[in-house]
Amino acid sequence: MSDASNGLVVWPRLVTLEGGEGAGKSTVLAALRDALLATGAEVVSSREPGGTPLAERIRELLLGTSTDDGGHEAPAADTELLLMFAARAQHVRQTILPALERGAWVLSDRFTDASYAYQGAARGLDGGFIADLERRVVGIVPGLTLLLDVPVAVGLQRARGRGPADRIEGEHDDFFESVRAGYLKRAAAEPRRFHVIDASQPAAEVATQALEAMHAYLRTVR
Amino acid sequence: MSDASNGLVVWPRLVTLEGGEGAGKSTVLAALRDALLATGAEVVSSREPGGTPLAERIRELLLGTSTDDGGHEAPAADTELLLMFAARAQHVRQTILPALERGAWVLSDRFTDASYAYQGAARGLDGGFIADLERRVVGIVPGLTLLLDVPVAVGLQRARGRGPADRIEGEHDDFFESVRAGYLKRAAAEPRRFHVIDASQPAAEVATQALEAMHAYLRTVR
Repeated sequence: MSDASNGLVVWPRLVTLEGGEGAGKSTVLAALRDALLATGAEVVSSREPGGTPLAERIRELLLGTSTDDGGHEAPAADTELLLMFAARAQHVRQTILPALERGAWVLSDRFTDASYAYQGAARGLDGGFIADLERRVVGIVPGLTLLLDVPVAVGLQRARGRGPADRIEGEHDDFFESVRAGYLKRAAAEPRRFHVIDASQPAAEVATQALEAMHAYLRTVR
Repeated sequence: MSDASNGLVVWPRLVTLEGGEGAGKSTVLAALRDALLATGAEVVSSREPGGTPLAERIRELLLGTSTDDGGHEAPAADTELLLMFAARAQHVRQTILPALERGAWVLSDRFTDASYAYQGAARGLDGGFIADLERRVVGIVPGLTLLLDVPVAVGLQRARGRGPADRIEGEHDDFFESVRAGYLKRAAAEPRRFHVIDASQPAAEVATQALEAMHAYLRTVR
């Protein structure tokens, strides 16, 4: 690990996947996991919001997918941001850091970049506040982030073929355009960490390019 | 309302009760509510963490009192702080501000001061971060705060007579000593807003003193 200039600690074995709805993250995550397992490494696969029992309960509140409650109102934007970081703080302390510290690889389906895209770019919350939260309660940053970029219409068509939409999947197209733009802006600002893949291609081609990026990355961190 | 020097907006009709376990807040809250109702005012009584359906769900995660889940781990300190402020952000936007804006009084059993005492003084989290969260996602401060101060041993004996302890009630005595000291420090720093009552007295006397403080306050804000 090493200190990034912004006070965050870079963990080379933390690899995150980012992208909007229907980008194909799950397929890519499975391919990356298998490739790492083939090297004999321990691999922890996780997701956000979630990654611990408590964080998965917070996820239910965020996405409105709890099956056992009498219903509750949607969170205000600030509430959504703090719930996301509450779940992330728990995920980092309980799951991610213990795994990294024993030498495992951690693959996370979304991480802090998602808050910059969803709560920052799309909900319009202040990026400076998000950066404060990242520094205060996250403190770590991935060595590699694969951004699966797909036009909003294509992604939504795929996602909506999967079943009922959760609260965030039910947002307007403009929201997802802002998410996409937010992600691309993050990637442009940190070209060494981000690898952007055109996820409008067939799933097999996307997975192939993700694996190529991962193998190239592995040669730099061994 | 008026702007306090720290950028927070003071709402005179927001009155909060603070204090540790077994301080007798519920009894006092009921007495204050009745006194305000007798003036013909609308009175909204609330509590933290809680005060909206979503915030009450967050409360269950914080206190470990959910009856319908398979259990989850306790939150880390940072997670606890962010869950508290997530619930508070929701409470302010959904319940407190709409009530204040239509001219109602709001009585809240705990508010932001509790985070300075519990998550700040007792858990040791940075007060500057708590102040950032207060400024960013709360933005309002009560006109009057009644602090029911009671020696830890007395309060815990009362609280433990009420039934099984929740996660926070199950903390060690040192934790509650720090909570008490944290509250008294807040009160000393803001003597105009805080009114400290010796809550080791009999409940009827505590209620009488709280009502006297409330009536004195009413003469200043009408």
